[in-house]
Amino acid sequence: MNLILIEKEELDATGHCRLHDHRARHIREVLRAEPSDQIVIGLLEGPRGTAEIIASDSDSITLRCTFEAGVPPRGNISIMLAMPRPKVMKRLWAQLAAMGVDRIFITNAARVEKFYFDSHVIDPEFYRPLLREGLQQARDTREPLVSVHRELKPFIEDELDGYTPDTLRLVADHRASQKLQPMPGKRVLLAVGPEGGWTPFELDLLVRRGFSAVGIGERTLRTDTACIALLALLSG
Amino acid sequence: MNLILIEKEELDATGHCRLHDHRARHIREVLRAEPSDQIVIGLLEGPRGTAEIIASDSDSITLRCTFEAGVPPRGNISIMLAMPRPKVMKRLWAQLAAMGVDRIFITNAARVEKFYFDSHVIDPEFYRPLLREGLQQARDTREPLVSVHRELKPFIEDELDGYTPDTLRLVADHRASQKLQPMPGKRVLLAVGPEGGWTPFELDLLVRRGFSAVGIGERTLRTDTACIALLALLSG
Repeated sequence: MNLILIEKEELDATGHCRLHDHRARHIREVLRAEPSDQIVIGLLEGPRGTAEIIASDSDSITLRCTFEAGVPPRGNISIMLAMPRPKVMKRLWAQLAAMGVDRIFITNAARVEKFYFDSHVIDPEFYRPLLREGLQQARDTREPLVSVHRELKPFIEDELDGYTPDTLRLVADHRASQKLQPMPGKRVLLAVGPEGGWTPFELDLLVRRGFSAVGIGERTLRTDTACIALLALLSG
Repeated sequence: MNLILIEKEELDATGHCRLHDHRARHIREVLRAEPSDQIVIGLLEGPRGTAEIIASDSDSITLRCTFEAGVPPRGNISIMLAMPRPKVMKRLWAQLAAMGVDRIFITNAARVEKFYFDSHVIDPEFYRPLLREGLQQARDTREPLVSVHRELKPFIEDELDGYTPDTLRLVADHRASQKLQPMPGKRVLLAVGPEGGWTPFELDLLVRRGFSAVGIGERTLRTDTACIALLALLSG
């Protein structure tokens, strides 16, 4: 953890905060911080800051927190992901958060196995700690917004405009001749298909709703590797 | 697996090959291929090709293999990686192979925990199957060459020139003002430090041996995420 995330409710009126959980253990055992030491903190959805350790025992750590004036901006890039194998999705959460993704839309697709949606990896109780792990790695405080859409067509046709207005829409596709270009600072929604690819019907649906197909090289990558590579390329 | 890798010793004089292991299971259970079906194959360090299934039973699959004329080229990018936590290294092997890395140098560094080198994740018996998994994912046949160097200074000063002649040397560094640029087609060696970063002494050693520091954005990424992002950016 390169920053310890704190929630608003954990702060008292004087900016003190007492941690009992894995964060306290991390401060004690990994950062090896002791009373009067300073550590880097962040308020979930708020500013970064520093905290002085004012008490530490085997049970808890008490911090006096000071926050910066500005709040880190949300990311510009959102990702629409045909639900990958649960094992792959599990690995992705922290990495997507660390890369600063704004929204994560998990969708169905013809080549997604139905039982993937029964997996606990898409329960908020499972993925939110992983998202926070990614934020703490990347020193960010803005948690990606996650939604799960079990029917692709109504989501694309009726709901997507509301979620992402004024956003450039791209769909990663092996056959596309146009190459993915860096778009630093631009609002982008990137659609990443299932391991077997989108069907022609799905690609057509996406293109009719404003998605441009962009190529991603010749190599067929696992969904998690492909997402990281695409996000890195987009951010330039 | 988007290609089934076969070793030269597994082929008989007439181009037939009998598989008994997980590849046979994969062909039967995932590809659901039956006699007379064609599948995509590759000869390790050799050409890609196709194979016709000529026999299939619960024990084995027999293939008649035909290979293309050309051999896929080795990749242009090599990576020098300060040994990451074994759990992270374990996740990286297949992904590095899938991204077409030429050589992987695992090195020591001041901020690498000594016990990482005792891990089985750097035993060839452990990592070679993972490298092949990555090759089969990306339809490649050229296995990355791996070497482990437990002393950084003599490796950089005395051995590296022999391994990578005529190669542009870059070291990823948060503080660098020059940004990493795509270098498609160019031979590059990219050095990626430990989670705590290279020490000033190590950075100086690298710069004196021809490495240029390149920035990689403000976000601190886990080593595996950072490697994929950097390799994607370099390949352009």
